[in-house]
Amino acid sequence: MRQSRMLLPTLREAPGDAEASSHALMQRAGMIRQLAAGVYSYLPLGRRVLGKIERIIREEMDRAGAQETLLPALQPAELWRQSGRYDVYGPELMRLRDRHDREFALGPTHEEVVTALVGAEVSSYRKLPLALYQIQTKFRDERRPRYGLLRGREFLMKDAYSFDADREGLDRAYGAMLAAYHRIFSRLGLRYRAVEADAGAIGGDGGTHEFMALADIGEDTIVSCSRCEYAANLEKAEARPAAPAAASSLTKGLPAAAAAPSHGAEPSTPAADDFSATDPPSAAAAPIAAAAAPERAATPDARTIAEVSAYLDVPPAGILKTLLFVVGGTPVAVVVRGDHEINELKVLQRLREDGLAREEDALELADAETVLRATGAKPGFAGPVGLDVPLLVDRDAAALASAVAGAGEEGFHLLGVVPGRDFPLERTGSFRNAAEGDGCPRCEEGRLTLSRGIELGHVFKLGTKYSEKLGALYLDKAGKERPIVMGCYGIGVSRALAAAAEQSQDGHGLVWPDALAPFHVHVMAVSAKDEAQQALAERLYDQLSAAGVETLLDDRDERPGVKFKDADLIGIPVRLVVGRDAVNGAVEYVERSGLGKEAVSAEEAVRRVLERFRPS
Amino acid sequence: MRQSRMLLPTLREAPGDAEASSHALMQRAGMIRQLAAGVYSYLPLGRRVLGKIERIIREEMDRAGAQETLLPALQPAELWRQSGRYDVYGPELMRLRDRHDREFALGPTHEEVVTALVGAEVSSYRKLPLALYQIQTKFRDERRPRYGLLRGREFLMKDAYSFDADREGLDRAYGAMLAAYHRIFSRLGLRYRAVEADAGAIGGDGGTHEFMALADIGEDTIVSCSRCEYAANLEKAEARPAAPAAASSLTKGLPAAAAAPSHGAEPSTPAADDFSATDPPSAAAAPIAAAAAPERAATPDARTIAEVSAYLDVPPAGILKTLLFVVGGTPVAVVVRGDHEINELKVLQRLREDGLAREEDALELADAETVLRATGAKPGFAGPVGLDVPLLVDRDAAALASAVAGAGEEGFHLLGVVPGRDFPLERTGSFRNAAEGDGCPRCEEGRLTLSRGIELGHVFKLGTKYSEKLGALYLDKAGKERPIVMGCYGIGVSRALAAAAEQSQDGHGLVWPDALAPFHVHVMAVSAKDEAQQALAERLYDQLSAAGVETLLDDRDERPGVKFKDADLIGIPVRLVVGRDAVNGAVEYVERSGLGKEAVSAEEAVRRVLERFRPS
Repeated sequence: MRQSRMLLPTLREAPGDAEASSHALMQRAGMIRQLAAGVYSYLPLGRRVLGKIERIIREEMDRAGAQETLLPALQPAELWRQSGRYDVYGPELMRLRDRHDREFALGPTHEEVVTALVGAEVSSYRKLPLALYQIQTKFRDERRPRYGLLRGREFLMKDAYSFDADREGLDRAYGAMLAAYHRIFSRLGLRYRAVEADAGAIGGDGGTHEFMALADIGEDTIVSCSRCEYAANLEKAEARPAAPAAASSLTKGLPAAAAAPSHGAEPSTPAADDFSATDPPSAAAAPIAAAAAPERAATPDARTIAEVSAYLDVPPAGILKTLLFVVGGTPVAVVVRGDHEINELKVLQRLREDGLAREEDALELADAETVLRATGAKPGFAGPVGLDVPLLVDRDAAALASAVAGAGEEGFHLLGVVPGRDFPLERTGSFRNAAEGDGCPRCEEGRLTLSRGIELGHVFKLGTKYSEKLGALYLDKAGKERPIVMGCYGIGVSRALAAAAEQSQDGHGLVWPDALAPFHVHVMAVSAKDEAQQALAERLYDQLSAAGVETLLDDRDERPGVKFKDADLIGIPVRLVVGRDAVNGAVEYVERSGLGKEAVSAEEAVRRVLERFRPS
Repeated sequence: MRQSRMLLPTLREAPGDAEASSHALMQRAGMIRQLAAGVYSYLPLGRRVLGKIERIIREEMDRAGAQETLLPALQPAELWRQSGRYDVYGPELMRLRDRHDREFALGPTHEEVVTALVGAEVSSYRKLPLALYQIQTKFRDERRPRYGLLRGREFLMKDAYSFDADREGLDRAYGAMLAAYHRIFSRLGLRYRAVEADAGAIGGDGGTHEFMALADIGEDTIVSCSRCEYAANLEKAEARPAAPAAASSLTKGLPAAAAAPSHGAEPSTPAADDFSATDPPSAAAAPIAAAAAPERAATPDARTIAEVSAYLDVPPAGILKTLLFVVGGTPVAVVVRGDHEINELKVLQRLREDGLAREEDALELADAETVLRATGAKPGFAGPVGLDVPLLVDRDAAALASAVAGAGEEGFHLLGVVPGRDFPLERTGSFRNAAEGDGCPRCEEGRLTLSRGIELGHVFKLGTKYSEKLGALYLDKAGKERPIVMGCYGIGVSRALAAAAEQSQDGHGLVWPDALAPFHVHVMAVSAKDEAQQALAERLYDQLSAAGVETLLDDRDERPGVKFKDADLIGIPVRLVVGRDAVNGAVEYVERSGLGKEAVSAEEAVRRVLERFRPS
């Protein structure tokens, strides 16, 4: 392709609203343009990369035995009412009425349509298993579209659905899709992790994994082990329970009375010492014992953990954080260590298991009035002692030998509070987010690290949730009617493009991996007037194009500096610069990654390019 | 692909609502399913054929120098207001509001978006010419979706747009697209005609062609010459004017007074005699002269041309049909021969040229009251004599030496009416549709034939209509600001699929041409129990698949009759039937087209298939 004939409008500066570097660079490189908030046009360069991603996904889906379909974006509202999602989905579901006033949803996903389709066509176990996929435009009216293609309102998605006779079949289909996803993201050249995830709104009763591209701009937090393969998103991640003994050290800054030796304490473990730099403070000091009863201490104006920690000179890990929630109209309290964050999903799950919450109940932070009524104090002074509501205590908080806690009285905290003695430990469990430096829950030695990720893909074992609601039944070998067992498997295609741009850049612009590069080779003459340079550049362009190498020829009448800057910005893997040595048949061979330059003969340059890029 | 694992639900009977045979067959062959009126899911077999059409279109668009983009379906209403189409488009434009109550249109076409995009990015003649295209889902809320994919509400379209500095550039771009379209439709294996068309609602000031697939179900009428390349749609088609003399023969059934020899009449031409079978009656009898003045004749209850013709025993071609219209609030009359149909588009165009209609005025048939007021009679008895409204006379009506016409008095007609003597011929021209047997307007010898067609593609010279409204301006070499000159070029991708199905069928099912076939070869064992047959079928399947031939293996445990019927229905070009001769290594080689069968060795079968289908 001749650059002079291409719509490839590069920009010196990104539009002011670009929050993510991928967003800024893809606009600057002339790949995308915004039409409305969260709605983008793909220019030729962006469309080319998108096409390469689509091709890789198609190849791997086909290889995994999934069959390509194309399902409608216009979906009758009745289908969504049948699944129960029409109202639940909320304003993210774009809705419209046709000329006959019939309601439609613009598909944000296709569980309803595909379940109804397969339900109508498949009635026997002999037609199962089955896996279908499509690459298609989806619509979601995000409350806050941002980061360019990373969170858009109209986006390209690959969604696949598996249909099996039983759970074992689903497990096989799920495994095949997991393997296909690993192949896809590897081939896309992305740095990614497959993490255990929470099923969230899409529902389903089984396993689920997210595939996350590692990137600081990512909106999700990934917890992964430094030693083994364990990885999960923050909502789902577990941590190895803290050694019970270590906890008692945390009153080191307290008055002498409270800092007496602890009973039952053990020395910190050698494993923990290995990570002293990132260790929680829990393992840092010698164990101490608690007094016979908690001691009341005035803490005027100290409400937050940080304020209490500073005022009492106690590390946050020695303070109990007590938060009041309301679920189904009833208050419940949750206690975690001051250095930990409550994981509401884990709390809610336990409340459901204990019959304290119904399936449809949500967990909401209690308002100030409810806190006052339940704890006797304003928020900031609540504590677990003497509390008359269901009390969930995180196991690391429960493991503390003694701790500081709110006194349930404004302006006061209690010192030397002993879990199990001063408040009940009937409902203990993991109710917190994993934290940097926590022990890995899977291997014995690893520590957890937190990083940011972009969700590229999500796979779910849906089970029979949709097939039951939409009547997708089949007859098994015994002639008994059963619901089809389903899985669903998504990949954000346009998001993968943005994630690749996020990961593939340096200070000069984009640096495409070979598999995704919009072109393989960028040929340019330094001088637009020099005939020898022009002739050699044209010859290289013709020769490589004829051999099937995707070549972009910068034939624009621009200054060399402009051409070089644009080439860096666009990020084509190999650049052949035809300069003064053209008269000697030599060119500069530039690797965009690292920008290493080498003078080689034109023949050698062609040889190298053909070896690397010639279609097999 | 193994048929047992594929979602390929064939049906013995088509759903009751299938009006077109393509619609019925594609449903029966398990290619598509309806989700809502005019909204279809493409099942794997349908998706495969669609993919082949997409690929051919992409290749030819790329070859024509157009660059692929992907533009949003969600289009801000403001853009459509800017172009003036938001209100004009009517209920076919699907509209919705986002969560912030902002108005959007679901793109039925992308002139607005692409013009705004290019207008923002291109500011100099040096960036022109430019051509962009996309293959994308479009939405049009058709009043009456029908014929399956032929007239849907959600459909796949290729739309391309060219951007040039001047008309000469547009002419070149248009020519390149015309050539690409011919290549595309030829490669798709379609029987089609490129016809001159009317620009219609999309506007523009230049040429336009439609590409029509020939099919009886087609909603458009194509007029084409039996001898030369002339073809046009009915709205646009011209006919060679009738020889003036021939017209006078048409009073042969009148009383003797009116049937005297005509002055100025000439014998019918030899050329016309060549087509006597399809000739209009105008050339059939000897010329006669009119009386000095029209004669009033009672024609009680004879209102229609057919009734008058029967009552007076005059052929329709000897009767003047006079219709009253209202344009911009003013009545006008149009006169054509009784055997001709008025072409309202041609009438409106002439009224505009003559300053009798403004650009925005529409032509509407006058109501009975207006007719009575203007002509003195109820509809059915209006005539041109003595009429006091602007009168447009079709040239073939004007050429009649004498004719019958309504008397402007209920129950009466006039005999021996002479155009130019009894009513003015100030505004004559071509105001009728071409008719079967008319002379070709381009060549001297050909006659026109009418056939039905499906509109596959439409190309327009838009000119500066959109660039002016949306401010897509560039600076020419002299630094002067000018609007970009545009063309637009559409292909109904999903409609092409249906058109191909409409043309490629026999009494047994679909008969795909090689280029579009969902698979190249269909392998099946006659007996699902016979081991030798199974083994040979599997071997053929493996061997062909490994060689890159797209092979479908019918490995279902079904009776032979079911397999054969399904294979006929699906229409894969070559079928290899492994039957009793499997033990001798022989198979039956069946050509789906014509269903010719031949016993050949397995090796010979493979050789033939590889020669025909192996990827180059």
